[in-house]
Amino acid sequence: MTLHGYFRSTAAWRVRIALAVKRLPYDQAFHHLRLGEQRSPSYLGLNPQGLVPALVVDGGDVLTQSLAIIEYLDETHPEPPLLPSSPLARAKIRAFAQAIACDIHPVQNLRVLDRLRALGLKEAEVQAWARDVIDQGLTACERLIADKSGRFAFGDSPGLADLCVVPQLFNARRFGADVRWPRLLAVEEACAELPAFVVSRPENQPDSE
Amino acid sequence: MTLHGYFRSTAAWRVRIALAVKRLPYDQAFHHLRLGEQRSPSYLGLNPQGLVPALVVDGGDVLTQSLAIIEYLDETHPEPPLLPSSPLARAKIRAFAQAIACDIHPVQNLRVLDRLRALGLKEAEVQAWARDVIDQGLTACERLIADKSGRFAFGDSPGLADLCVVPQLFNARRFGADVRWPRLLAVEEACAELPAFVVSRPENQPDSE
Repeated sequence: MTLHGYFRSTAAWRVRIALAVKRLPYDQAFHHLRLGEQRSPSYLGLNPQGLVPALVVDGGDVLTQSLAIIEYLDETHPEPPLLPSSPLARAKIRAFAQAIACDIHPVQNLRVLDRLRALGLKEAEVQAWARDVIDQGLTACERLIADKSGRFAFGDSPGLADLCVVPQLFNARRFGADVRWPRLLAVEEACAELPAFVVSRPENQPDSE
Repeated sequence: MTLHGYFRSTAAWRVRIALAVKRLPYDQAFHHLRLGEQRSPSYLGLNPQGLVPALVVDGGDVLTQSLAIIEYLDETHPEPPLLPSSPLARAKIRAFAQAIACDIHPVQNLRVLDRLRALGLKEAEVQAWARDVIDQGLTACERLIADKSGRFAFGDSPGLADLCVVPQLFNARRFGADVRWPRLLAVEEACAELPAFVVSRPENQPDSE
């Protein structure tokens, strides 16, 4: 398998963690987002959205969208599971993951921030936009798991929700958000002890700057 | 079950179609988004994100995020299926749905447009923002299914992808996008013949204005 990504893309980072948790070997291809390499004709042929990640699986099929890729990996390599078996529990974890992957990350990603710059907003306003979106979103996420007691977001083993929390907290700090969510921080701390999360960090990727 | 929604919310609309396709009875509770009713303390107690939809299932659990709700309905009421059984096919359909639910809708929803207004952008710029996001996103979606030949987005029966296409095309027109995608329009036409899609339309909801 080949993962097309970028060291600092939080969506690609989620997939790296999933691959590492499942101990699946893969190659990486890098696309420098700030240089616009994700919009090259050859990459658009792979993923018409011009976004990373994309995972080329054995057989040549191209999978896109981090959450769809992670569910594919979980269905084809069930151990260790990233989702539980009960439909109700699965729905709550998916909703938490989507609260990050739909309602935070795409509203603060490079493409949106560049749109704001093109509209003439000052850099301080652009940074404040990202910070506010992350702040509002992670505050809701904290409430979604406030009553959970496990070491991870949902229980005592890492899963789909945790794969989303760790990269989004990284972005929160990057944009200067006040990282004040005790449950999310406890989840991050529990994840930091696991090698699969450590090897997947941006600074440990070959294209890290 | 009780669906908390708003007639014009495209995310709530997706869930209405899923419930209708599966012939599941449900009550509706309405939250007027333009009046900010989704941010009332009582609704935030239900969904800390302050977004619709939320589905209160029998037993009282609250499910949020349209795609998570739809997968829950598909897992608990498998017929007719909204996702196929092959992991590869599921991944492609989920990715298509997420291309809309992550990368188009949250970047053009009311919350984001209100942020733009608060930053002093003119109404024409706000409308152009929504139009451009939809245009770019649906152009990628068209390419994702360009080589498919079924009546619906993926095959000859309606599924998760179609539930996302129809509401997003409605929004495309609402914001004045040039609706020029032959495959997406053919999907919309096929869906328009199905009663489950007709009863779910915004103008057929009790809170329609």
